[in-house]
Amino acid sequence: MTEARVERRLAAILAADVAGYSRLMGIDEEGTLSALKAYRRELIDPKIAEHRGRIVKTTGDGALVEFASAVDAVRCALDLQRDTAARNADIPDDRRIEFRIGINVGDIINDEGDLYGDGVNVAARIESLAEPGMVCLSDSAYQQIRGKLSLDVADMGEKSLKNIAQPVRV
Amino acid sequence: MTEARVERRLAAILAADVAGYSRLMGIDEEGTLSALKAYRRELIDPKIAEHRGRIVKTTGDGALVEFASAVDAVRCALDLQRDTAARNADIPDDRRIEFRIGINVGDIINDEGDLYGDGVNVAARIESLAEPGMVCLSDSAYQQIRGKLSLDVADMGEKSLKNIAQPVRV
Repeated sequence: MTEARVERRLAAILAADVAGYSRLMGIDEEGTLSALKAYRRELIDPKIAEHRGRIVKTTGDGALVEFASAVDAVRCALDLQRDTAARNADIPDDRRIEFRIGINVGDIINDEGDLYGDGVNVAARIESLAEPGMVCLSDSAYQQIRGKLSLDVADMGEKSLKNIAQPVRV
Repeated sequence: MTEARVERRLAAILAADVAGYSRLMGIDEEGTLSALKAYRRELIDPKIAEHRGRIVKTTGDGALVEFASAVDAVRCALDLQRDTAARNADIPDDRRIEFRIGINVGDIINDEGDLYGDGVNVAARIESLAEPGMVCLSDSAYQQIRGKLSLDVADMGEKSLKNIAQPVRV
């Protein structure tokens, strides 16, 4: 074996972003940033830690999180969406911060803490299919939680995702 | 949270056993045992280590192995079957040791090194569907290697497995 072997592992990848981030920043830049920071400190980071997730990277309004278990990833996403909805109850519609979340299970490549591979790309693509406040699961994520969590799920059928060779059931 | 949280993780589970073990033992008990021990020492254990697998348990003629990556698990299984076929070339048909291998991807429960859950049971069940010298993959394992390894695969369709609630595509 002369080929250098890359380190692969199965992981549940959670991709999240803020729905209407540009619009919110347009209305109130400093207020939105400060609300987002409070969300991370008080809600998001503790929830991710509770469910044994690892934040791989964050962007302005998004995050990529790795979980060893799909069940943990979905529990974390549902907790986050439920708690966000509770926080939003007293906030005017146009100032609400709502998250879109996508979760995929993939055999990903780990290179010095960063993750690569289709499994990561699919998570980001299906996240963009989620309605604000909702969680989208790929079929490979759903297969791993079926029968282990009781959920209301809707089948969105097969979707062709940009730059992904095979259609993915969502 | 008062509920004790079990430790879950995504893993590729490889189940293997010797085809016709009882028959082989009936023909030559000591010779079969000694051949099996040589297989483990010279072929199986080194291959599993090379592909970063962890032997969870062994029985008389079987083994359960955990891999962090489905790609690693399938590479390991194909290497084992290829090398076994090469060793068998000079051995009379009725004395050949051939393995059946099943691989599944599951969100399994890890309790002090032992593994539990449907993911483990499915691997054992699909292993019993494999012809001697062949590897059976569940759909959830196949999804994770599709496009990453070039293989000859045949779709065996959906199978109802004993004590498993949902049919599994193999």
